Amino acid sequence: MGPKRCAVASEESLMRIFTVPEAPDSTLSKIELEISNNLAGFLNENIAAIEKPLHDIEKDFQSAVIPEEPMFVSDYAQDIMEQLVAHSVHTAAPSFIGHMTSALPHFVLPLSKLMVGLNQNLVKIETSKAFTPLERQVLGMMHHLAYGASDKFYDKWMHSASTSLGAFCSGGTVANITALWIARNRLLKADGQFKGIAAKGMVAAMLHYGYKGLAVLVSERGHYSLGKAADVLGLGRDNFIAIETDANNKVNVPKMREQAHKLEAQGIKVMALVGVAGTTETGNIDPLDDMATLSEELGCHFHVDAAWGGATLLSANNRHLLNGIERADSITIDAHKQMYVPMGAGLVLFKDPAASDAIEHHAEYILRKGSKDLGSHTLEGSRPGMAMLVHACLRVIGRKGYQMLIDKGIEKAKYFASLIEQEPNFELISQPELCLLTYRYVPVQVRKAIESASEQERIDIYAALNRFTASMQKRQREAGISFVSRTRLTPSQYDSQPTVVFRVVLANPLTSKSILQGILDEQKALAKTDPIFKKYLLKYMT
Amino acid sequence: MGPKRCAVASEESLMRIFTVPEAPDSTLSKIELEISNNLAGFLNENIAAIEKPLHDIEKDFQSAVIPEEPMFVSDYAQDIMEQLVAHSVHTAAPSFIGHMTSALPHFVLPLSKLMVGLNQNLVKIETSKAFTPLERQVLGMMHHLAYGASDKFYDKWMHSASTSLGAFCSGGTVANITALWIARNRLLKADGQFKGIAAKGMVAAMLHYGYKGLAVLVSERGHYSLGKAADVLGLGRDNFIAIETDANNKVNVPKMREQAHKLEAQGIKVMALVGVAGTTETGNIDPLDDMATLSEELGCHFHVDAAWGGATLLSANNRHLLNGIERADSITIDAHKQMYVPMGAGLVLFKDPAASDAIEHHAEYILRKGSKDLGSHTLEGSRPGMAMLVHACLRVIGRKGYQMLIDKGIEKAKYFASLIEQEPNFELISQPELCLLTYRYVPVQVRKAIESASEQERIDIYAALNRFTASMQKRQREAGISFVSRTRLTPSQYDSQPTVVFRVVLANPLTSKSILQGILDEQKALAKTDPIFKKYLLKYMT
Repeated sequence: MGPKRCAVASEESLMRIFTVPEAPDSTLSKIELEISNNLAGFLNENIAAIEKPLHDIEKDFQSAVIPEEPMFVSDYAQDIMEQLVAHSVHTAAPSFIGHMTSALPHFVLPLSKLMVGLNQNLVKIETSKAFTPLERQVLGMMHHLAYGASDKFYDKWMHSASTSLGAFCSGGTVANITALWIARNRLLKADGQFKGIAAKGMVAAMLHYGYKGLAVLVSERGHYSLGKAADVLGLGRDNFIAIETDANNKVNVPKMREQAHKLEAQGIKVMALVGVAGTTETGNIDPLDDMATLSEELGCHFHVDAAWGGATLLSANNRHLLNGIERADSITIDAHKQMYVPMGAGLVLFKDPAASDAIEHHAEYILRKGSKDLGSHTLEGSRPGMAMLVHACLRVIGRKGYQMLIDKGIEKAKYFASLIEQEPNFELISQPELCLLTYRYVPVQVRKAIESASEQERIDIYAALNRFTASMQKRQREAGISFVSRTRLTPSQYDSQPTVVFRVVLANPLTSKSILQGILDEQKALAKTDPIFKKYLLKYMT
Repeated sequence: MGPKRCAVASEESLMRIFTVPEAPDSTLSKIELEISNNLAGFLNENIAAIEKPLHDIEKDFQSAVIPEEPMFVSDYAQDIMEQLVAHSVHTAAPSFIGHMTSALPHFVLPLSKLMVGLNQNLVKIETSKAFTPLERQVLGMMHHLAYGASDKFYDKWMHSASTSLGAFCSGGTVANITALWIARNRLLKADGQFKGIAAKGMVAAMLHYGYKGLAVLVSERGHYSLGKAADVLGLGRDNFIAIETDANNKVNVPKMREQAHKLEAQGIKVMALVGVAGTTETGNIDPLDDMATLSEELGCHFHVDAAWGGATLLSANNRHLLNGIERADSITIDAHKQMYVPMGAGLVLFKDPAASDAIEHHAEYILRKGSKDLGSHTLEGSRPGMAMLVHACLRVIGRKGYQMLIDKGIEKAKYFASLIEQEPNFELISQPELCLLTYRYVPVQVRKAIESASEQERIDIYAALNRFTASMQKRQREAGISFVSRTRLTPSQYDSQPTVVFRVVLANPLTSKSILQGILDEQKALAKTDPIFKKYLLKYMT
C-alpha cells in the first residue's frame, strides 16, 4: 500500500490528492471494486436491515465545526461506510416499492464516473462543447416522442442558436416552475410601450393588461411542486385552484370548465391549465385531450406534468393513455423516475420553439447573443452533464426496451391489485392505471361495523383506521424487509373523508410476484400485533 | 469476454443490464479503469486538442428519433468516446484558466460512484435517511464558517424538524433565487386578515402593504442570475437597480444609499441589497460591512452572493476580505467552484433559523409537518446526495488544506498580474483581489496613438481593440493549448467605454508559473498573426 494521503496539510500531500489516484488496494478503491462487481450485493451487505432511530444517526453528524486538519481518505471511507452507507435507504431493493426509485442499469455507474471526471458545465459551450449538441439531441428526441413533429422541424430547431426545444434541469419541480414561468411571461408579454413582466414585474403587468387576477386550474391530485411554482412566480397558492377528481382520481373537466367561466366572468384571467399524467399518489392520468380543448376555448397555456407518466410514451401499447399530451404547450418529464436514470435529471419540453424566448437572458462573459449556450434558456445556471446518462439509456435500452419495462410495470401493478382483491381483509383503494396503486388493511368485521355504525361511530372508526394504517406503515419500514409508503386520499367509499392508505410504485424491474405476495403476508402478520389496532379496532372483531 | 449485453429487446437481456455488472474486460470497464488509474492522462489522451467546429460535432447528434432497438453497451461506449469525450472541454487542464473549473481531488470519483449507486433522494428521510443528517451537518458547518454562532445554537437548530439553516441546491442560481424568494416573502408576509404573498400573490400583497413598487439594489457587476431571480419572482428586471462600481469593481455604497433614499421617497420599498463577494468577471468583493449597515438603516434584507468568494472564508489569512458577511441575512456559496466539488453543488445559508419558514411547504405523502424532510424548505424537489461530496472534501482536505488552496490561488493571481505588468504590450485591467484578473494586449504604440487621438479616432481604436481581443481569445481557444475567457468591462482608462478583456481564474492548484508565462508567450505570438490586428491596428504601429 502506498503512503497514506493528505493527513498533514503540507503542500505536497495536498497536491497528491489532485494528481495521484487512489491506490488499487486502498479502502476506497476496494469499496469501489465491490460496487463494480456486484452493486446489489454491496447494497444488501452494507445497508443495515434494521432501522436505527434518526436521533442515533444524527449523533455522527453533530459537529458544526469544519475540522482544522486534513484526514486520510481511507479513514474517511471507513467512517462513511459505518455512519452513512449503513444507514442509507436501499432504494434499489426489489421490496422497496414505496417510492419512485428502482434498481438502475449497471452501465450508468461507470458512465457517471466518466461524467464526473469530465466535469463539464452545460451552461455554456465553452465548458461543455459536445455535451451541448448531445443535450440538444436528447431534448429533441423527447420532443419528438411527445409531439412527433417533422424531420424538417428538428433540422431547423434542434441545434438552433436562437432557441431550445426544452430545458434540462435537476428535476420535475424546476421543470414545472420553468413551464409556468414561460406561461406567465407569454401572457404578460411586452405590448406597445409596456416592456413586459420580465422587465417590469407582476404589478405593472397586471395594471397594463387590466386583469383583476390570474388563476391556474389543476386537479386536486396535482403535485405539491405546483404550489411552490405559484408561490415563487408571485401568483399565489390560493390562485392555483384545485378541481375535484372523479372516482379514478382524474380531474373532472366539466367542473374545470365551469370554474374557468366563473373566474373569467369575475375578470380573472385563467393563465394555464395543468394536466397531470401520472399523479404522484395514485398514478392516474387526467383527460388530457379534453383539457387541451378547454385550454383552446380559454386561450390559455396548457401544461402537462408528466414527471412520472411521461415515460409511458415510450410504450406503443400504453402511450394511448396519454392521448392529448401532443396538444400541450409544455410537458414535464423526469428521467430519474421511470426512465431509470440516477437522481438529478428532469426536463421540460416546449411545443413551440419560440416559447423559450419568454425567459431568454444574456450576460457579458457567456450566453452572448447568437451563441448556442444552453444556459440562456434555463432557470438553473451551471449544470452537470446528466443528459449523457439519459442519452445512454435511450440508446442502450432503446424504445423497445423501455416499452417492455413500462408494460411490465403496469402488468405487475394489475397483478398486485388482483392479489389484494383476493384477500378479504385488504381493500384496494385505487386501481392501477400506470404502475401505482393504493390500498389498505381493513378486516371484514371492521367493514361490517362501519356499515351498521352511526355517523359519530363511523368517524371514530375512520380515525382509528387512519392511525392503524400509519402505524403499520411505520412498523414495516422499521423492520427493514420491505417498504411501502403512505398518503392520504378522500375516496368515496369512506364518505370522501381523509383516508390514510398504503401506496406502492411498481417500477423496479426486479420486483417479483413472490416479493409482492411476501409484502401482503408481512402486513397480515403486522396487523395482528399492531398496538393501535389492539387499542382501537379489536373491539369490532366479533 | 461474457456475452454482449442487451442488443435484442428480450426480457432476459433487458434484465441483465439491471443485474449483471459490466464484465471487467468490456470496453466500458476499460474506460473506467483508465479513469481510475490516471484521470489526467485519460483526459489528455482522449480529448482532442484541436477544436472541431461545432456544426461538425452536431452531425453526430442529428437524429430526433429515439432508436427502436437496444444497443450493446460496448458499442455505445465506443461511440461516446469518439463523438462526445473527444470533443468535450478539458476543464481540468492546468492551462484551462478561463472559467471557474479546476482539477478535482481524485477521491471524489469513487465517491461519486458510491453516491450514484446508493441513488438517495434528499427530498425526504424515507429515501435518504443518514444522508439527511449529513446534509444538515454540511449546512451547519458552512453556517458556522460564515456566522460562527454558538454551540448551543447548532445543538438547537442543526437537526431541528422545524427549520433548516440553509438549502442545498444544484447551483448558485437556485441559491440566489431561494434567498430572494425568502426576502420577498418575509417582507410581504401574512398580516392580520391578509394571508401573505405566498398564498395571495404579488398584486394582493402590494395592495395590502401599499408600496408603489419594490426594488433590489446591486452592483453593476452582479451575476446575471440576479436578473433571472427578478424575472422569476415577479419583481421585474428593471427593478433590480444596478449601482455603479469604483475603479476596483466594488459597489459604491454612498451611491447605493443615495439611490435607496430616492426610491423610498417615491414610495418604492427597497426589498433587499445584494452584495457580491467575488464578482464573476473580476473577483472583487463589495464593501460588505458598509452594505450591512445600510441594510439596517433601510430595514431590508441583505443577501451576499458569495458563489465564488465564499470559499475564501476557509482561509484565516484572507477571510478578512469578506468582513461584514456575518451580518448578511442570507449567503450563496457554490461548492462546485472553489471548494473543488464536481458540478451540481450549491447552497444558500440563512442567518436566522426562522427564515426558511417563509417558503415552507408540505404534502400528504411526504414533507409532513414535524418530519425532518429537507424538501419542505427547498425550491427543488427530488435531489441527489451531492452533500456527501462536500462533506468528504471538508473532512479530507480540512480547513487548513483549503486555506492553502485559497491562499495559493490568490498568490498565483498576484504573480500573474506582476508578469503582465512587466510586459510592455500587455495591460492589466483589473488587479486580483481573489484569484481572478482581467487584462488585454495593447501594444505601446497603440496606447500612444490613443493618447494623441481625436475623440472619433479614439472610438475607432477602442472598437478595433475590442474586435482584436475577441479574435485572439477565439483563436487561442481553437488552438487547444490553453484557454482564457473574455468579458466586457467599462474601465476608466478607456473613458468607461465597453472594453473587451481577457479574463482568467487561477483556482486550479496544478496551474504552474511556467504555464502562465507560456500563455502570455502564446498570446504574443497570436497577436502578431491576428487578422483583425492587421486590418485595423497595424497602421498605428509606427
